[in-house]
Amino acid sequence: MGSLIYIAGFLAIIAIVYAMYLFKKVLSYSSGNDKVKEIAGYIKEGANAFLSREYRIIIIFVILGFFGLWLALSIASALAFVLGATFSGIAGLVGMKTATEANSRTATAANNHGMNEALNVAFKGGTVMGMSVVGFGLLGLIIVYLIAENLFSLDASTAIEIAAGYSLGASTIALFSRVGGGIYTKAADVGADMVGKIELDVPEDDPRNPATIADNVGDNVGDVAGMGSDLLESYVSSIIGAATIGALWFGSQGVIFVLIIAGVGILSSILGTFFVKTGKNGNPHHSLKLGTYMSALFFVIGSFIVTYFFNIKQYDASGLSELPSNMGPFYSIIVGLAVGLFIAFISEYYTSEKYKFVKEIAKQSETGHATNIIAGIATGMQSTVFPILAIALGSLLAFEVGGLFGIGLAAVGMLGTAGMTVSVDAYGPIADNAGGIAQMSKMDDHVRKITDKLDSVGNTTAAVAKGFAIGSAALTALALFSSYAVKTGLETINLINSHVISGLVVGGMLAFLFSSMTIFSVGKAANKMIDEIRRQFRDIPGILEGNATPDYSKCVAISTDSALKEMLAPALLAIITPVVVGFVFGPAALGGLLAGTLITGIMLAIFMANSGGAWDNAKKYIEDGHHGGKGSAAHKASVTGDTVGDPLKDTSGPALNILIKLMTTVSLLLAAMF
Amino acid sequence: MGSLIYIAGFLAIIAIVYAMYLFKKVLSYSSGNDKVKEIAGYIKEGANAFLSREYRIIIIFVILGFFGLWLALSIASALAFVLGATFSGIAGLVGMKTATEANSRTATAANNHGMNEALNVAFKGGTVMGMSVVGFGLLGLIIVYLIAENLFSLDASTAIEIAAGYSLGASTIALFSRVGGGIYTKAADVGADMVGKIELDVPEDDPRNPATIADNVGDNVGDVAGMGSDLLESYVSSIIGAATIGALWFGSQGVIFVLIIAGVGILSSILGTFFVKTGKNGNPHHSLKLGTYMSALFFVIGSFIVTYFFNIKQYDASGLSELPSNMGPFYSIIVGLAVGLFIAFISEYYTSEKYKFVKEIAKQSETGHATNIIAGIATGMQSTVFPILAIALGSLLAFEVGGLFGIGLAAVGMLGTAGMTVSVDAYGPIADNAGGIAQMSKMDDHVRKITDKLDSVGNTTAAVAKGFAIGSAALTALALFSSYAVKTGLETINLINSHVISGLVVGGMLAFLFSSMTIFSVGKAANKMIDEIRRQFRDIPGILEGNATPDYSKCVAISTDSALKEMLAPALLAIITPVVVGFVFGPAALGGLLAGTLITGIMLAIFMANSGGAWDNAKKYIEDGHHGGKGSAAHKASVTGDTVGDPLKDTSGPALNILIKLMTTVSLLLAAMF
Repeated sequence: MGSLIYIAGFLAIIAIVYAMYLFKKVLSYSSGNDKVKEIAGYIKEGANAFLSREYRIIIIFVILGFFGLWLALSIASALAFVLGATFSGIAGLVGMKTATEANSRTATAANNHGMNEALNVAFKGGTVMGMSVVGFGLLGLIIVYLIAENLFSLDASTAIEIAAGYSLGASTIALFSRVGGGIYTKAADVGADMVGKIELDVPEDDPRNPATIADNVGDNVGDVAGMGSDLLESYVSSIIGAATIGALWFGSQGVIFVLIIAGVGILSSILGTFFVKTGKNGNPHHSLKLGTYMSALFFVIGSFIVTYFFNIKQYDASGLSELPSNMGPFYSIIVGLAVGLFIAFISEYYTSEKYKFVKEIAKQSETGHATNIIAGIATGMQSTVFPILAIALGSLLAFEVGGLFGIGLAAVGMLGTAGMTVSVDAYGPIADNAGGIAQMSKMDDHVRKITDKLDSVGNTTAAVAKGFAIGSAALTALALFSSYAVKTGLETINLINSHVISGLVVGGMLAFLFSSMTIFSVGKAANKMIDEIRRQFRDIPGILEGNATPDYSKCVAISTDSALKEMLAPALLAIITPVVVGFVFGPAALGGLLAGTLITGIMLAIFMANSGGAWDNAKKYIEDGHHGGKGSAAHKASVTGDTVGDPLKDTSGPALNILIKLMTTVSLLLAAMF
Repeated sequence: MGSLIYIAGFLAIIAIVYAMYLFKKVLSYSSGNDKVKEIAGYIKEGANAFLSREYRIIIIFVILGFFGLWLALSIASALAFVLGATFSGIAGLVGMKTATEANSRTATAANNHGMNEALNVAFKGGTVMGMSVVGFGLLGLIIVYLIAENLFSLDASTAIEIAAGYSLGASTIALFSRVGGGIYTKAADVGADMVGKIELDVPEDDPRNPATIADNVGDNVGDVAGMGSDLLESYVSSIIGAATIGALWFGSQGVIFVLIIAGVGILSSILGTFFVKTGKNGNPHHSLKLGTYMSALFFVIGSFIVTYFFNIKQYDASGLSELPSNMGPFYSIIVGLAVGLFIAFISEYYTSEKYKFVKEIAKQSETGHATNIIAGIATGMQSTVFPILAIALGSLLAFEVGGLFGIGLAAVGMLGTAGMTVSVDAYGPIADNAGGIAQMSKMDDHVRKITDKLDSVGNTTAAVAKGFAIGSAALTALALFSSYAVKTGLETINLINSHVISGLVVGGMLAFLFSSMTIFSVGKAANKMIDEIRRQFRDIPGILEGNATPDYSKCVAISTDSALKEMLAPALLAIITPVVVGFVFGPAALGGLLAGTLITGIMLAIFMANSGGAWDNAKKYIEDGHHGGKGSAAHKASVTGDTVGDPLKDTSGPALNILIKLMTTVSLLLAAMF
């Protein structure tokens, strides 16, 4: 049985090799004419500069974390932490490098060969990222586990505890990257839009706008690098969540089962990518959906076979409950996958212009900015209902068929095909960037049409990926939370206890505080950006006429500096709070705190993601010619909504998912000390 | 000892008599010239029409509730329910009747005699409401308790259970009134502003705007009648929360103690009102503050004396903990009062133009609508931090010195001087209405200056009252929640249990769903209003030039119909959910649900109240001449923020406080049946 773990490791390596192969493949496409190369060069340069400065700051925290964990726990945990941080950083870096190569090549492919070839390049670029995330994520985890088990001769449960250090490393980087990248991209985006679109009627991605390059850099450092680290974190922590309980109940068999299931997911994702292709005038949306569904199908079949042959024993239960069937783990996985798909569908329902909510927001834009905002807020709030019911029902079902282990496995099931989901998600910003490059290098209109089509599909797939990220965050946090309770030896975390309920209330508040910090940061940075853009239009004569080149680097520097400065406080809040509460008020209060942050955090994350998505698409719907189209009063109001949604959906919202898990992982690791 | 309860009842009657005396006094002032009388008549007529239609609908639910409670519990509970509903309705009605008489008299007093006389009339009108709320609230409770104890010969604990029916009746009316009144007033307000201020540059309260009368009616049915029922509910349920635990621990002595403390609060409030007067050019703010602080001082002294002489025994504890000192109850009351004052201060800090947050929102209005909204959202979110820490710390402290009883008493302490707080709060809309009448009847400018001054003070005091309402809702809900746990016999509500955690998540979602429903309702109703206003300006020639009278009654009818239709769904959600969850998923899941709604509900309530207040005052700050003043681009952006904030701070936010307590009270009453 033990040798099976090597198969899982082998599948992870396959994913990395596949990613390397695709990276070479992307590079083999034409990178376009000199103008394209020049613009792509600016973007690449800005992105690299940001990431290297960001990583230099993060490294300090990795070193601090290393010594902290060494002192508090063990050298093994500390080393696992560093490996997790490193692999998370690598996944982000690889994704971003690929994206900054693939963007110009996608634009050029659209120009020279049309839709299918452009989709091909963009999706290959996305797949490099997708495969890196799952490949590095799983590989690192297996390395840590094997070393802990064999070199340090630890039992499965203790070995997984070491592996939680790996997860913590990944989470820490993810939080910094998400917050930093999110502030970067939204400061540039909001700044560029407010001066460009609203004040001066300069269209999106126009080279006359000094913040255009910063905006495009932002797509790469926020939506690609930040998202890559984020999803590696989600992926790893879902596995840790399930494996921790698996180890407690079934020993190493439980851990190996989870790792094999993850491996099956990787294989399914690889196979799924082969289904993504489209004809000359084909519909990329269908093609991407087909790939996603095929991956899911393979994953279901594979999980069934693995569960059947593992024939996992009824656990000794320690009084909790019993698995009603040996196929319980399989059912739990299916529940997770189903909940994930359902949440994705609901996200689409609330954020797509095909359905009534976005149409209503567009209509409300006719009566002004305020009614647009009110409708968007109410839509986002209402959009929490079905995902939450699905999560609640899903976790009850998963618990019925698989106990706490089932809840953990549901999260693993939801993220099993993350290789595919991330590929589809990462393709979006590449297509978006390709559009920007096409615009800036003044390519033919038909190119922009193709990239716009690819980009709009990307918006929907991004909503799907966000749905998976939120759903899995909730289930993973629930599983980690249960593990926390077991580790602290708390048989109950009693809501009637005044410490627990105080912790709960304060935890709920933390999610609001964290959100306000990140939103304020974007606001502050965007303001600096607006001042700089206005200054350039004022001081550099001829920019607006296209006779002078704006100083792009100044805007890039503003985004970079602001993001790096502003990412520290929210990230530290997430790390330090559970430590302080745990030591000062004890494990029960900390349990309440974690549950409080979990609830309001999920709620705010769904609200923000869907409000933002709905505002964005209401604006696109109006731009498509409804309610007066571009330039109308309704359009102006819809741009306000879109801008308000930017920091919510791309900075605060996604970072909340990490916040929840990071706090729980920190608590889990230090549980024994409280 | 038992006869002391009659003293409490006597003090309640004193409050009612004092209210009646002041009502006569208000009527004795001049109601102004014919034009004033005509306009005030419109407002009175609209308000009466709405309230009588609203009450006719509510009566159906009272009858249903009566039979429901009779079947489920007992005829005694059912009758108590009807009495609670009736008294809550009376308090709202009295407040509104007084307000619609006092508004024209305040304007006329300002015109004929200046500031002091105007403050006098407005504050006397507010005091009628404040005294009615506490008088009827406490009197009804005592009647129910005495009948249950003497006629039905029940022990203290069972008698208080009957009294919980009284509280439920009050809560039900409060929820309907708050939601209905809130939708009414904000539909009119948003509609009037969006067409009047933004599209046509017609100032606030201009008689040319067809929605002006509806807007002024709204102040009376929402901010006065709705608020009156709301605070009666808060007041009664805080007493019930403490008395339930008091009865369990100390028998009838515990109940009487709580009732006497409430009586002391009433006496302190009455004494406090005598300190509210100001000179010809005096500052009404100082005068109102002085009254509030004097009430608090009397209350502290009185509570000390009562606690000292009651010398309450250490409770037998049933294993929970022991009162460390016989003065514990007094300390708990002080903690509650201090937390209330602290939250009020924080509310002011985040929503007053004297401090940096409102100034920042005003500044962000310069860069556009979107940055105004973003800053307001972030401000509201951050404003949750200190109130929540205060509530958490306060409940820990209160628990330390008084156990669960202490938490209940802290809520009673916070609302002890509600007689004064409500008087100060209700004076605001009277002054606001007086300003509207002065404007519409074209009184001299100096009158508007006086009423504006009174109104702006009212805005701050409203924020203070909201702070008290939120803080007491949190503490009361905590106390009721503990009582619920005791009643269901649940020794623990275990967060590790999958039913509890699912309940917790779903409960958290309910607060978002409830908010989205009420916000959507305002949006829908406002849209109808906007269409009607535009239609009138189009179809009735000469309105804008002031040559034709708009059809006010159409707008009044739209607000009335929408409010009555839209208030049903959210109110039913609040009542039915706990019943369904309790019966289907059991008491533990329901416990989780209540805790979940409690946390996200408080968080959203604070966020909405303070975002809304900050947007409102940022607009006023700009109108005072900053950032370009009235008519500037910054001003337009700030009007957007103010309008977005309207449904948040005056409809959804306050209704959330009631939602939390109503759900808990329903659960508490039905606890034995799950």
